[in-house]
This record gives sequence, structure tokens and C-alpha cells, in this order.
Amino acid sequence: MAENREVTIYDIAKHLNISAATVSRGLKNSPSVNKNTRKKIAEAAVELGYQSNTFASSLRSKSTHTLGVLVPRLNSYFMSSVLAGMENAANRHGYNLIIAQSLEDAEKEKLNAATMFNKRVDGLLISLSYDTQNINHLEPFFKRKIPVVFFDRVHPHNASTSIVINNYGAAYNITKHLIDQGCRRIMHLGGNVLRNVYKERFDGYRQALKDHDLSFNEKMHFISTLSEKAGAEAAKHILNLTAAKRPDAVFSANDTAAVYCMIALKTAGLRIPEDVAFAGFNNDPISKVIEPNLTTVDYSGDTMGNTAVTNLINHLKGISNLYSTNSITLRADMIIRASSLKKG
Amino acid sequence: MAENREVTIYDIAKHLNISAATVSRGLKNSPSVNKNTRKKIAEAAVELGYQSNTFASSLRSKSTHTLGVLVPRLNSYFMSSVLAGMENAANRHGYNLIIAQSLEDAEKEKLNAATMFNKRVDGLLISLSYDTQNINHLEPFFKRKIPVVFFDRVHPHNASTSIVINNYGAAYNITKHLIDQGCRRIMHLGGNVLRNVYKERFDGYRQALKDHDLSFNEKMHFISTLSEKAGAEAAKHILNLTAAKRPDAVFSANDTAAVYCMIALKTAGLRIPEDVAFAGFNNDPISKVIEPNLTTVDYSGDTMGNTAVTNLINHLKGISNLYSTNSITLRADMIIRASSLKKG
Repeated sequence: MAENREVTIYDIAKHLNISAATVSRGLKNSPSVNKNTRKKIAEAAVELGYQSNTFASSLRSKSTHTLGVLVPRLNSYFMSSVLAGMENAANRHGYNLIIAQSLEDAEKEKLNAATMFNKRVDGLLISLSYDTQNINHLEPFFKRKIPVVFFDRVHPHNASTSIVINNYGAAYNITKHLIDQGCRRIMHLGGNVLRNVYKERFDGYRQALKDHDLSFNEKMHFISTLSEKAGAEAAKHILNLTAAKRPDAVFSANDTAAVYCMIALKTAGLRIPEDVAFAGFNNDPISKVIEPNLTTVDYSGDTMGNTAVTNLINHLKGISNLYSTNSITLRADMIIRASSLKKG
Repeated sequence: MAENREVTIYDIAKHLNISAATVSRGLKNSPSVNKNTRKKIAEAAVELGYQSNTFASSLRSKSTHTLGVLVPRLNSYFMSSVLAGMENAANRHGYNLIIAQSLEDAEKEKLNAATMFNKRVDGLLISLSYDTQNINHLEPFFKRKIPVVFFDRVHPHNASTSIVINNYGAAYNITKHLIDQGCRRIMHLGGNVLRNVYKERFDGYRQALKDHDLSFNEKMHFISTLSEKAGAEAAKHILNLTAAKRPDAVFSANDTAAVYCMIALKTAGLRIPEDVAFAGFNNDPISKVIEPNLTTVDYSGDTMGNTAVTNLINHLKGISNLYSTNSITLRADMIIRASSLKKG
């Protein structure tokens, strides 16, 4: 047989010396075809390299069974867990995922959104880049009623659902926990407040201070990209303060910055939690390895990915209506470990 | 305008009161159309929600500009780096990635491969599951000359390229390093030897022992899935040995098992590296956080993903021929840290 020519049901029919109609029904596993014949047809299809016509039928049905996934960065533990959860749910329902990363760049996010749109994804799952200012680039989706689900870094939109955790509540609780441990000068390592996740964690931290009659000082809000380097720089900043002005606790909006801040402070001779207590966010693998182990917020990427895809597919299947759901808030429990335990 | 009807170039033409032919040329950014008009056409296309016909043209050209990626698990640091590298390279060349995970299950890998085949990916990138026995499920790709690139966990095939590191050499060097530090009873935490990566790391370890007149003992080869739990179980196994039979070094085929073995041994009072020296593999984030920091092999997932996709796309573009390349071996340097340094 020719190597590059498309294999058709006629080739399978000829190969087995049966009719093309029988092959067609056999490939659909129709009981009207003898079981043995169906088996022979299936085997011949593989042997000859027959490709089912899902691609052409997608064009006819206007459905590609493909979901677009736009994320800021693929290479983080949290995002890899989200993707794993998404793939699991999509696979279970016969959908495929097309992925793209903005690399935290709003312009790249726009280009990726346009590509997904032209690829005719059935739905879009998106977590916004660090500096995205608005969601005008998603208008084509809204206009064509292609469902959009935001997750983690979301943007309110009346024709879209957001999958989030209670960032405000989690930050409030973890700050309260530090206060309960006797900490009075709590520094916050935060991200760009343009993104809901960082804004809400900052707000929760500030409200907890207020509710416990602790004043908030702008100098105790250290904004960065929360990278390893940013964590080390926060430590340098802390070490440059006079002992009286140093924080007695640090609440970081992610585990990476917390851990690299801890490492630098430990190297400089500070004791954790005695001199500075620590709390992070995400429950990344490093939080269980750093000494002392890091108090953090368990934020299940797997559950978030699974929920986002399941809701999107249920909408596509007409089982539920995404547009009537404003947001879905997932559980995110505080995990208290030695880095913040100053009292028995 | 109707919300669900396909927007055509005729709608854009009508909207701007120009000819459809001009719109068609304008959308292709042809210089024969006035620059201002091209801008107006592009804006109207977005405003009206026009989708370019890449999907239909894919069907005509028999090319989808989509690459399939089949991996064992998405949620590992290494794999998320591979995906990030792949997405980067694919995006640069105008290709999209469809992803699926086998969850280390050969049967699921087969189903995923069939889905990718029917989705008509232009090429396939695959890393095999833990228990895949053969690659018969990839025959349809080979038969239709759809290029297949193996990466990391590979399988030799004469119509395919494998992207690997020198696992044997890296394992040999790291074992030799432990021997140079005075270690004589080196245990190996390994994976399923059905997979090249684990077989070759085991072989490199064994050869280094042999070349230094150290005998190999089957009891010093602890085979597992190299999970956190497996690392802790290896520690239990070590602690159950009499002091005279205990290893004075552990070389693990990944960082996760090494780190969780270290944590358990430290808890039991053993000193690292004095009582047991440690070396891992991958240079995961946890290897830089565990105390003492873990000696390991720097294995860049990003470079591997980038190389795999770039070679695949070059083949598709006719720039180079994948079939003439048997394998590509990437650099993987040993990183010596405190966990293995017994001497100055």
C-alpha cells in the first residue's frame, strides 16, 4: 500500500473482501455486524493505518472536543498539578487539551488567545499573566459564546466562571495564627496587586493586623515576583534593618520566596521561628523539606484543574450552565508546621 | 449580528463597505491593500469575532500544526520543565501542543496514542510509562510516516529519534565520585529496569563499582517507584541492617527518593554525609533545600523539551531529516554539594 495516501474504509473493505458499508458499521461497533467480523475490521484498521474521521467530523459538527489552556508559566509545581488535574478530567470526557504559556507577558497572552480562538477550541481555561491589564483579548470568545473559565488568577466577567480559593480568608487565618503565636511585627512578601490572588492575600493580612490592633506599615509590604532571588533579596532587606525594626514574622504569598528568605536568614545566624517565624502559601514540595518545615496553605492545583475542566465540559454538554455561576471557591486549609510554632 | 453564526469575510466586507476580495487580501496582510485599510480590516475582524480558517485549511493541507505530547505524569518538576521547553519551541514555530498523561499505565498510553493519531497530530513526542512493554501501539504513526520523537524514557526504533542524556555516564561519574570520597558500600535506589533511564543508571553504577574493585551485592539494589514513600521505605530498610552491613553511601536514581530517605535517616540520628553520603538525580528544587544540600545530576527538562520539538518541527519543515538521526544526547553535569563531601 502507498505510505502517504489516506487509508479509507474502502481499503479495509478490499483487504477483508467485505463491503464498505459493513466496514463502516463495524468501525462504529454496530451489533448488526458479526462480532468476529468487527474484530477483524478493527485489526485491519490498525494494520493498514486507518485514521478515523474525527477531524473532518469536527469541521462538520463545529465541535473540536479540544479545550484551550492558557497559563502564565508551565514550570511551577502548582501549575503542573493544575494541568494534571485538567488532563485527568478532560481525558475522562473524551476532550483534549491544547496548552500555551504567556511567560507572564500580557502581549504573549493576547497572541496565544488569538491562536486558541482560531484553533476553534470548544472552551478556554485561563490564568492571567503577571501584568495583564484587561481582558479585551478574550472578547472574541465572549462574542462567539465560546465558554471561558478563569482559574487562580481570575478577572470578573458576567459571562464567565472563576475557580478560586478564598485567598483573603486563608491569608487572614495564617496572619492571625502568627499573631496568636505572639508575633507583632509581621512582614508580608507579596506579588503584583493587579492580580486578585496577591491583592486578596495582602488584604487578608492587613485586615488581620487591623482586627488585632496592630498597625500596618508600608515598609512591611515587600512586593516582588516571589522568585528564589526575590526571597533572598527580602532577607537582605530584613538583615539591613536595625534589630528593633526587624519583623518577628514573615508571611509570604508563596513558598518559594519564603524558603529562600529562610535559607538566607539562617545563613546569617537568625533562628526560625524564635527570631523570625515563617508562613508561606501553596504547600509546594520544598515546604516539607526546608528546616524547620514551613507553615503554609494547602492549595490543591489538581482539584482546581479538575473542577475547572469538569464545569466547562458540563456546560458544553448542556448538563449545567456556566454562565449562571459567578465563581466556585475551593477549600484551602492552613497547614501549621514548625516554622511558625513559637508556643508549645 | 447573530451570535452563533460563523462570521465570514463577507460580513467584514459589508461592515466596512469594501469588497470581500480586499478583505481577503487584507487579512493576509498583503501590501496590495492600503495600510490603513488593512488596520481597519484587522480591527473589524476582532470586533465582529471573525475566526480565520486555519481549521478548514488544515483539513485541505493535511497538516494541523499540532504536536501530540504523551508523558507518564504531568505533575513532576522535571516534566513541567520539559513541557515549558516544548511549548516555547512550538509557539515560536507556530505549532500547538496537545497533551496527555498515561499515569504510568501502559493501557492508558495505548488509548492516548490512538486519540493523538485520530486527532491527526503532525508529529508525536513521547516518554514511556513505567510498565510499557513494547511500542506496537505506535505502529500506526510509523506506518503513516507521522514522525515520532522519544524523549527521556525512550525505545529504540529505526524510524524515530530519541532525545536522551548519557544516563550511564552520569551514574558512573556520580558513583565514582562517592568512591573517591571513601565510600565502599554504596546502595542504589533504582527504578524499573524495563525503562532505559533506570537500566542505564544501574549499569553505570555497577560498572563504576567493578572498575574500582568493589563487589556488587543484589541487596544493595533497592528497586521502587522512587516516590517520597519509597525513599522513606529505603531508609527503614537501611536502619534494619546491622551497622556493619549498612551502606556508607546511597546513590538514588531521582532526588525525591534520595531526599525522603535522608529525612528519615536524619530523624533516626544518622549523620549525612559522615555516616551515609548521598547523591540523587535531576536537580529538582528540593535538592537545593534539603540539609545538607544534595549532590545530584543537573538534567535540564527545558533543554530536552526544546530540542525534541525543534528537531520534530525541522523534520516537518523539511529542514532536516529525523529518520537519519538515531539519537541526540544532551549534556547532564554532576553538581557536587555537601551531602556527598566527606573530604575537604
